[in-house]
Amino acid sequence: MTIATKLRELRARLLEIRDLGWAGAVLSWDQATYMPVAGAPARARQLALLSRLEHERMTDPALGRLLAALAPYADEHDDDDARLIAVARRDFEKAIKVPASYVERANALGSASYSAWRNARPNNDFASMRPYLEKSLELTREYVEFFAPYQHMADPLIDDVDEGLTCATIRALFDELRRELVPLVASICNQPPADASCLHAEFAERPQLEFGLKVATDFGYDLKRGRLDTTPHPFCTKFSDADIRITTRAYANELSQGLFSTLHETGHALYEQGIAHELAGTPLGRGTSMGVHESQSRLWENVVGRSRNFWQHYYPKLQQEFPEQLGKTSPDTFYRAINKVERSLIRTDADEVTYNLHVILRFDLELELLEGKLAVKDLPQAWRARYERDLATTPPDDRDGCLQDVHWYSGGGIGGAFHSYAIGNILAAQFHAAALRAHPDIPNEIRAGEFTTLRQWLTENLYRHGRKFKPAEIVARATGEPMTIKPYMAYLRGKYGALYQLA
Amino acid sequence: MTIATKLRELRARLLEIRDLGWAGAVLSWDQATYMPVAGAPARARQLALLSRLEHERMTDPALGRLLAALAPYADEHDDDDARLIAVARRDFEKAIKVPASYVERANALGSASYSAWRNARPNNDFASMRPYLEKSLELTREYVEFFAPYQHMADPLIDDVDEGLTCATIRALFDELRRELVPLVASICNQPPADASCLHAEFAERPQLEFGLKVATDFGYDLKRGRLDTTPHPFCTKFSDADIRITTRAYANELSQGLFSTLHETGHALYEQGIAHELAGTPLGRGTSMGVHESQSRLWENVVGRSRNFWQHYYPKLQQEFPEQLGKTSPDTFYRAINKVERSLIRTDADEVTYNLHVILRFDLELELLEGKLAVKDLPQAWRARYERDLATTPPDDRDGCLQDVHWYSGGGIGGAFHSYAIGNILAAQFHAAALRAHPDIPNEIRAGEFTTLRQWLTENLYRHGRKFKPAEIVARATGEPMTIKPYMAYLRGKYGALYQLA
Repeated sequence: MTIATKLRELRARLLEIRDLGWAGAVLSWDQATYMPVAGAPARARQLALLSRLEHERMTDPALGRLLAALAPYADEHDDDDARLIAVARRDFEKAIKVPASYVERANALGSASYSAWRNARPNNDFASMRPYLEKSLELTREYVEFFAPYQHMADPLIDDVDEGLTCATIRALFDELRRELVPLVASICNQPPADASCLHAEFAERPQLEFGLKVATDFGYDLKRGRLDTTPHPFCTKFSDADIRITTRAYANELSQGLFSTLHETGHALYEQGIAHELAGTPLGRGTSMGVHESQSRLWENVVGRSRNFWQHYYPKLQQEFPEQLGKTSPDTFYRAINKVERSLIRTDADEVTYNLHVILRFDLELELLEGKLAVKDLPQAWRARYERDLATTPPDDRDGCLQDVHWYSGGGIGGAFHSYAIGNILAAQFHAAALRAHPDIPNEIRAGEFTTLRQWLTENLYRHGRKFKPAEIVARATGEPMTIKPYMAYLRGKYGALYQLA
Repeated sequence: MTIATKLRELRARLLEIRDLGWAGAVLSWDQATYMPVAGAPARARQLALLSRLEHERMTDPALGRLLAALAPYADEHDDDDARLIAVARRDFEKAIKVPASYVERANALGSASYSAWRNARPNNDFASMRPYLEKSLELTREYVEFFAPYQHMADPLIDDVDEGLTCATIRALFDELRRELVPLVASICNQPPADASCLHAEFAERPQLEFGLKVATDFGYDLKRGRLDTTPHPFCTKFSDADIRITTRAYANELSQGLFSTLHETGHALYEQGIAHELAGTPLGRGTSMGVHESQSRLWENVVGRSRNFWQHYYPKLQQEFPEQLGKTSPDTFYRAINKVERSLIRTDADEVTYNLHVILRFDLELELLEGKLAVKDLPQAWRARYERDLATTPPDDRDGCLQDVHWYSGGGIGGAFHSYAIGNILAAQFHAAALRAHPDIPNEIRAGEFTTLRQWLTENLYRHGRKFKPAEIVARATGEPMTIKPYMAYLRGKYGALYQLA
């Protein structure tokens, strides 16, 4: 076989793996959006089948032989094919380390645990979740061993979602961030709180969704290759490079949740829609990491979507949609409301400034659990202690405490879950600052409801490359420096310093 | 291996085959309902992949060995397991006769032909479809040879959808039917035509859909295991025994199309939802044939849904939904409008009386094409001649002539497509008459918007058995006689004799 023939076979095999994953994604999307309730058991079985067929192909020894035969090409070249081979090899080497029987056990636990959590959380019943969490921790430790040796137990988990990052790097980054954030939050919270009551009128669902979708398409979300539906937990999903969908929600008595969920998922979708067509259906045809992906959802949601420039254009339009609810609310009041900073209990509702504190304390607790320094039974108490220390709030119960996030209770493992959200905030500011250096006119364009320059810069420097470059590479290429919290802290200090009249 | 172990393995294999089919059905449903336009090429590829994986498993020699080992059990017993083995063996024996390469070629032609037809029909361009149709005819002949020897070339095609029926049987049935129908249509069309103008006001989409869905649930359609969406071409689909969905359409200026499409698809769904739970996921867990399936859509759509009894209960409710449009229309005028008989050009719009003439002429043309008595190039002319002879109308063009139905242009083969619709009409009346003999009170219940007795009789005598009995068996068991046009002709003469004051 010539190299070209081998590459063709490789691409065909990888595309089949992808198509099985995408078929499963359609079934999951339908489950979240439209499936009648009784459909769940059969759907779970069908998803498990597709996932098994995908895993069989991902770990097929014939794929391994093909990749081994192509390895010399990858070592000697630096083109797209070489990158494809290298990434596919890495994926293969990781996949074969995990026995199919482990995957099955982990999936089964994940399903059972998730079902239990859906009951336990509303009933504030941590006790019933304790055995699941203990088992989950056990399975996580078993998983980590497949990748021994490692520096820290969390490293293989982190590497799965953010290739190249380690526990040590993140710890250092989070320590630095925490040192900066805690006093900033304190000084903001010394000021009178913003009045967010304008967000709590009665807002009909349809205009909320339509307004959000209008902004999404203004950002550049292409509805010929996408669509918006509603789900209790918004997400972005992909069925091919030409079908990338988002979901959102709309609350009748709270405007910002639905709107900013739409903009958040739009950010994910813009990244995926911006990937070069020639990478489609290969392991290079997706965002390079969780953290970088989250940077794009946070950039469009927050850096753009919660900016004064953005609302200069869109607030009159929003008022037109909701004249009774917002007609008498000034742009400034609205802007302050959507950027209200407060020490709160729920991560997903947190503002831009306090958000990372929620993440960091979860990350720390995960490490303590992994390292065996914290027993699952003591988690509720440890959680409360950390909220009191870092956010000066005391969760009244576990429901809004350590039961609030699905991550630990859905089989994803303990320790590879939360850090990416903070990485996303940090990188959102870093990418945005780099775009502004290249195109200082971007703020004026946003003020005119125009996003082409920003989106094109992101597409050129980030989106189109998909997974061709590792996260650290793409950050360095796009921004000229390694990941740093400086642009992020400068962004927060600039924006919130003005909002809260800080010195 | 014990019989029990072998049966367990058989069920597991069959369930995997079914789940791959059902996963494909989800992808197809999404394509018809919500998929963004650009998603089509990847979706076709994913559907082909799932279909290939399903076909590999359907023809797996290990399945054949398992079935052979279980064959003695099937020969010696008459329980559900024995029926399952027998039906699975038959499916297997048929599946292995068709080479995978043929399936691929046929699917590829089907996709290409369907795409071409979507352009050709609006442009009245039969010439561009001629090569596709010629190729399709060629492939159909190739397919038929896999099942040689046969009495008539159409027999294997007919057997695929209506097991046990043959071309000779259908020909005889259709000859008899045509002899009865042609004079009946003539005597109706000698009367003044019904006034259907009340159906052509402006009707908003949402109340149309809601009204149809209300009737569907009154019929017994279970929304915990189903839902209704809109598509240009309505259908019923199934993703498991607990997720059976229907689609419909709504036209702003024509009320009956959408409403009766909903009732039609509800009939299919009631059949599938009524199948005994223990047959789920096996080859017994679906309707026994196309013709019998169509009998249920036509029974609920026409025999129930276009009856005077039905509208005695529902017409006031429909008027409430559309007071401006229907407030001044009498129940009798409305009833005559939805049962207007006319010689028309389009099969899918045809009334109950003329409908079968549309089917019979297609069936005859299919046979002539198959037998080589009619060349594809002469089809438009032959079509026109038959419409003039049988329906006294002349299609002004091929768009509303031989290009109107998708069947010949979507890879389904020529000759196994249309006859089931007429079988459905005939059997609808036969099943209904049998139900009435058992429960003479059914018309009174329907007059009160109550359908339980009818649905339960159908469930007991037809639905719950799924594919356990062959079509002819189930007809004989449920109605006490073989398929016959007598109840159907009696139904038509009774209903339309009164409507059109025939002697």
